[in-house]
Amino acid sequence: MSQPPINALAQRLRHELPTLALFDDAANREVYAYDNSKRRGVPDLVALAESHAEVEIIVRHCHELAVPLIARGRGSNTTGASIAASGGLVLSLERMQRILHIVPGDRYAQVEAGVLNGDLNQTLQQHGLCWAPDPTSAPYSSIGGNLACNAGGPRTVKYGAARDNLLALRGVDGRGRGFRCGAAVSKLSTGFDLARLLVGSEGTLAVITEATLLLTPLAEAKRGMRALFDSVESAASAVARIMAQPVRPCALEFMDSAALGLVRSRGVDLPVGAAALLLIEVDGRAVELADQCQAIQKAADGAGLIEFQIASDDTALAGLWAARRALSPALRELAPTKVNEDVVVPVSRLPDLVRSVVDFGRQAGITVVCFGHAGNGNLHVNLMFDGADPRQAEAAEHCLNQVFDRVIELGGMLSGEHGIGLAKRDFMQRALDPVTLDLMRRIKAEFDPKGILNPGKLLPPAIA
Amino acid sequence: MSQPPINALAQRLRHELPTLALFDDAANREVYAYDNSKRRGVPDLVALAESHAEVEIIVRHCHELAVPLIARGRGSNTTGASIAASGGLVLSLERMQRILHIVPGDRYAQVEAGVLNGDLNQTLQQHGLCWAPDPTSAPYSSIGGNLACNAGGPRTVKYGAARDNLLALRGVDGRGRGFRCGAAVSKLSTGFDLARLLVGSEGTLAVITEATLLLTPLAEAKRGMRALFDSVESAASAVARIMAQPVRPCALEFMDSAALGLVRSRGVDLPVGAAALLLIEVDGRAVELADQCQAIQKAADGAGLIEFQIASDDTALAGLWAARRALSPALRELAPTKVNEDVVVPVSRLPDLVRSVVDFGRQAGITVVCFGHAGNGNLHVNLMFDGADPRQAEAAEHCLNQVFDRVIELGGMLSGEHGIGLAKRDFMQRALDPVTLDLMRRIKAEFDPKGILNPGKLLPPAIA
Repeated sequence: MSQPPINALAQRLRHELPTLALFDDAANREVYAYDNSKRRGVPDLVALAESHAEVEIIVRHCHELAVPLIARGRGSNTTGASIAASGGLVLSLERMQRILHIVPGDRYAQVEAGVLNGDLNQTLQQHGLCWAPDPTSAPYSSIGGNLACNAGGPRTVKYGAARDNLLALRGVDGRGRGFRCGAAVSKLSTGFDLARLLVGSEGTLAVITEATLLLTPLAEAKRGMRALFDSVESAASAVARIMAQPVRPCALEFMDSAALGLVRSRGVDLPVGAAALLLIEVDGRAVELADQCQAIQKAADGAGLIEFQIASDDTALAGLWAARRALSPALRELAPTKVNEDVVVPVSRLPDLVRSVVDFGRQAGITVVCFGHAGNGNLHVNLMFDGADPRQAEAAEHCLNQVFDRVIELGGMLSGEHGIGLAKRDFMQRALDPVTLDLMRRIKAEFDPKGILNPGKLLPPAIA
Repeated sequence: MSQPPINALAQRLRHELPTLALFDDAANREVYAYDNSKRRGVPDLVALAESHAEVEIIVRHCHELAVPLIARGRGSNTTGASIAASGGLVLSLERMQRILHIVPGDRYAQVEAGVLNGDLNQTLQQHGLCWAPDPTSAPYSSIGGNLACNAGGPRTVKYGAARDNLLALRGVDGRGRGFRCGAAVSKLSTGFDLARLLVGSEGTLAVITEATLLLTPLAEAKRGMRALFDSVESAASAVARIMAQPVRPCALEFMDSAALGLVRSRGVDLPVGAAALLLIEVDGRAVELADQCQAIQKAADGAGLIEFQIASDDTALAGLWAARRALSPALRELAPTKVNEDVVVPVSRLPDLVRSVVDFGRQAGITVVCFGHAGNGNLHVNLMFDGADPRQAEAAEHCLNQVFDRVIELGGMLSGEHGIGLAKRDFMQRALDPVTLDLMRRIKAEFDPKGILNPGKLLPPAIA
């Protein structure tokens, strides 16, 4: 960033918002230079807004001076979506932490964007309610960030992702104009759905400052099951059967044989011949669960099922999840570099995808470990290699290219819940048709005519 | 419409698409001049497209010649959204009736826009699946029309409206460019959500030609209940209690005392003192229903409950619905003119709304009958009067204005499921903030730079 507009911006903000936390020192700029993608981009300025009104003023000045503005929750995203790739101002919403209203009778909560998912859910518990999206990062990721990425988690298979649990938004567009869209109602046909358009837009269309969230009553009880299969194909067929019957699980997680091998090596005991695992949970009224488990067991039963266990209590449930919990630490020790993609395909194409991905890895000499949210066809493909070795890095990149091509062939998409950011931006041209991409760019240009909002993220540069 | 562009359009289409059903005779133009709003607008031309490719060509020529194009399913909408208000070409999609794919294992169906909701659901039955949106018009309304209006129905309270049950779309923008958006997956974070943006856009952004729909497994069994209350307030409080607990009903319908009075006059026997009625259904596994009913009964129980009945079988269920079924014919006989709005408010504001609406009606000397989808806060407000009497017509208009103002005061919106069309277009400025409306207009301009797609609908003209 050339200095004159940055200096002018700092001067204007200090003048108009004398109490704003605004930093340009190296230490603070460094603190906001990262996200969970391990990419880095040092901003020129960091502002910690405390209100919607402040955000309007900050964006308006950035617009007038054409300074890039990167809105940020807690930086837990994995795609580089919240780093200042080309300098500019990082606008952190971490101080906008107020839960404005909780209306249990209408099942909605209105919150500022910086409220943490985990904090909100803790508060909601006393009302017997929750906000359903449950990314792994929930304890330390913000509602605004969850919405910007359309975050999900295991519960998405029954309760939906961020977009499905949103009613209304307050935001600021790229000119610095505040607006509200949607309403605190669960059914709406009054104009274009701008609220859901902003979900998943990764801060490229507007800064989300407040959200009105649809709440879900907490289930009375939950029960877990574990099914082991002799092959990925058998497991994936069982997933399709489970999803086609009326009892919808509240988690339907998958691990492939590489993942099982890893957790076996960490001491988790699994039957011989088990090459794929499903963790399944159902929730609802306590008296219903036995019947729900029976329905799931019936659907899971079929060719290749080796073992089916229903957890009798919470301790047993924790035992079933041991394999899944052992996986992340085991992965960390497997190789210095992990590229974790979260591609999504129709459920029935999971076996094709896993088979292809394992083949690509073998050809490239790279270990590939697959697990994920099978009920949504959302697979975490982990390429494990040593990024310091240029040959391995190149092989991994080639492998990743093949994975995305295969996903698109199978009718799937680049990301189910992590988003695009910088990491997958250059694959968008393969995934979307040119007219669709053109329409997205045109929408972007209307919300943000100077292109100051999170520049370079999500949309690939147009080919001149 | 001035004739030269129309003649040129007809000539071009006959030349490029010699087999296209294209009509300019008075009889055919008259057939496509109506919709269910009782408004009228005679198009200059009527085209019955048979494929996406034909739609691309038709829209491209309309774009080049700046001829208005009104896409149309079966014209069942109630807002004038599908009439040719300023001439031009009506593009009917009624011949695009192919169900392209049904993939039960992945719970999706891909269909052409002209497929009727009822036909699709009949076909899906053999797979144990359904497409959840259930407008009253389902037997004769098209999927494309359902999506264009974000149609819902009683089931929406549990299974969502059209937007919630859509995965991907194929469409044609205002330049005649075909595109696809979304994917056949239940979880997606790959760019802006154009598919859901098009839902509810009433043909003003693009012509929807094909849709990939999320399917829902048919419930094994269903059970109905009826609760009678001594006041609207008591009933609405019960609705809020029912919606705040974990057993979600698959229908939660409401009738006010005017509605009950009407059906009483048609011979439906109801206890003395009953001033509001709830019809409630639950569905799921057969073995769960008794427990679900118990949970609903417990939530419904409270101040003002006069009677609570659980239908023992289908005959008893039909008996409970008798009051609701008797309502529409009774309404038709009450007054020559019925203005049926479908406003939506947070559930807890229903009593305020009903009380206000009854007051406005009394002041205006107009009978007001309220019923609707209480679980979504979606109230059908029926103003009954004689439109041929200018004094009554004026009073009704004044009353309608008051209703919309009140709805907005209560945090609600103009329409829950019917959409805006021409009927509510001029209220949009009251309901939405100016920046939001400006962003909608800008999106419209990018999808349709010449403003040919369903001109004059949904968005009010910008004030110069």
